[in-house]
Amino acid sequence: MPHLTAAQVPLTCDVTVINEFGQPQRIAIPAERALTVYVDKRELVTLMTLGGHPEWLVLGYLRNQRLVTSLDDIESVTVDWDVGAAAVKTRHGIDEIEAKTASKVVTTGCGQGSMFGSLMAEVERLQLPVKATLRQSQLQNVVNTIRLQDSTYKSAGSVHGCGLFRGDELLLFVEDVGRHNAVDTIAGWMWLQDPAQMRGDDKVFYTTGRLTSEMVIKSAQMGIPVVVSRSGMTQMGLAVAQQVGLCAVGRATHRRMLCFSHPERLVFDAMPPVPRREVSESDMQPAVA
Amino acid sequence: MPHLTAAQVPLTCDVTVINEFGQPQRIAIPAERALTVYVDKRELVTLMTLGGHPEWLVLGYLRNQRLVTSLDDIESVTVDWDVGAAAVKTRHGIDEIEAKTASKVVTTGCGQGSMFGSLMAEVERLQLPVKATLRQSQLQNVVNTIRLQDSTYKSAGSVHGCGLFRGDELLLFVEDVGRHNAVDTIAGWMWLQDPAQMRGDDKVFYTTGRLTSEMVIKSAQMGIPVVVSRSGMTQMGLAVAQQVGLCAVGRATHRRMLCFSHPERLVFDAMPPVPRREVSESDMQPAVA
Repeated sequence: MPHLTAAQVPLTCDVTVINEFGQPQRIAIPAERALTVYVDKRELVTLMTLGGHPEWLVLGYLRNQRLVTSLDDIESVTVDWDVGAAAVKTRHGIDEIEAKTASKVVTTGCGQGSMFGSLMAEVERLQLPVKATLRQSQLQNVVNTIRLQDSTYKSAGSVHGCGLFRGDELLLFVEDVGRHNAVDTIAGWMWLQDPAQMRGDDKVFYTTGRLTSEMVIKSAQMGIPVVVSRSGMTQMGLAVAQQVGLCAVGRATHRRMLCFSHPERLVFDAMPPVPRREVSESDMQPAVA
Repeated sequence: MPHLTAAQVPLTCDVTVINEFGQPQRIAIPAERALTVYVDKRELVTLMTLGGHPEWLVLGYLRNQRLVTSLDDIESVTVDWDVGAAAVKTRHGIDEIEAKTASKVVTTGCGQGSMFGSLMAEVERLQLPVKATLRQSQLQNVVNTIRLQDSTYKSAGSVHGCGLFRGDELLLFVEDVGRHNAVDTIAGWMWLQDPAQMRGDDKVFYTTGRLTSEMVIKSAQMGIPVVVSRSGMTQMGLAVAQQVGLCAVGRATHRRMLCFSHPERLVFDAMPPVPRREVSESDMQPAVA
């Protein structure tokens, strides 16, 4: 198990803004910090992050970028916020780190994310557990648990949240200014747990962000067969989900949801009681961005 | 002026989803396409995009990444959706392209955006026109114009929009699955216009996305002194805005808004008529993510 620091830093700060009446008003806004990752003293990347769990973020980043394949390869992650640096010490170095970080995919996330290497090629090999299912009642509990969660979003807005669930039991909730940072942080945390507990087939991944190709790929890489979002889905996200066997649920609110792919993984045990009116124009409108 | 193709491609597709009643439902979702950019036959980057204006996107990407400093250096941009490629032909090559694309900043946008080189160093040198102002009534018109705009967001959701305004006159509205792609597309389009018309000081930049550091930097690089968002702002976005002289307005709706920085650029000519109640807990809640 690698040695990790537990660097702490405030997640929000209070600022004075001028409102529409020309009057000053105090509000909280989320932090956004530059964290430069060094692997064996070589600069790898600078992540802009809220700063809640920098060590897990760095681990998850290395894992999801496929730069490190086993946790045993990492001796330590040392985060020092005074200099905005995360120093990763490996046991044997990273093979072909130059080649692995050479090609760039600037993804859509919401920004231009960056995936090193040929993640899309890996998609070809991914196949999620066939039998995993989720009950609609559990899905409703997942959405409700997120809704009730105390969060930086509630106090300061402008962050994305992700939740890892076992069935409808929340295991970890992470927020970050970047939604890919949030999912990387979850991947890092999962790596640190007992592998027997962290098999993917009983897990559900919740994200406030849209289900783009990169988000779907990251969920599938964690071996999680069901992903839930309150947002919608893109065409390439859908294509990847269909291919790897991922059940993607979007527009999920307390009662409503749209299952974009592999609906056979959902058990409809809690359909709303009132039959729905005819599908109208307004059903085509998104609930959230 | 470079030769550009005008590659067209559908921006949405209709898919069948399963709703909360277990019934099939047809909805539209936005496209998301991989566009690999080659500069003088050398692979540079793959952008995941909606595909509305790929040639402007590529121009703006090269401009905002500071890989090309003058439009005269570009002979042509040829987009071929059949192979998902944008071929850029330069007149004299790009100096030090290896060095310029070597260091990575994975930003938060909403995802992990990527900025090559040391954009932050450039921020030190940016200073926006001192005298530029915007009237609150114009600000309200900007928000209203965006609200009434016909859009992929309205039909399919899951995209970000950006608008370039002269005062409150909309010059260009762009949507993309990635908000950084949307702003890059605007930067590319601006490059192609008469430079005398494209000075920044009378412009306003609107984005549906949050005002993170990268978004603020890109606005400032375009020389635009006022940026408006319906979303909020991060701490580093605010720090950069304060430094470069950018008036950042967030949480902008028909009547409401919060000015995060440089309120001296706003002329309060249209304050809402009803004095506001005491600031309560709920004012701290964000309107949108």
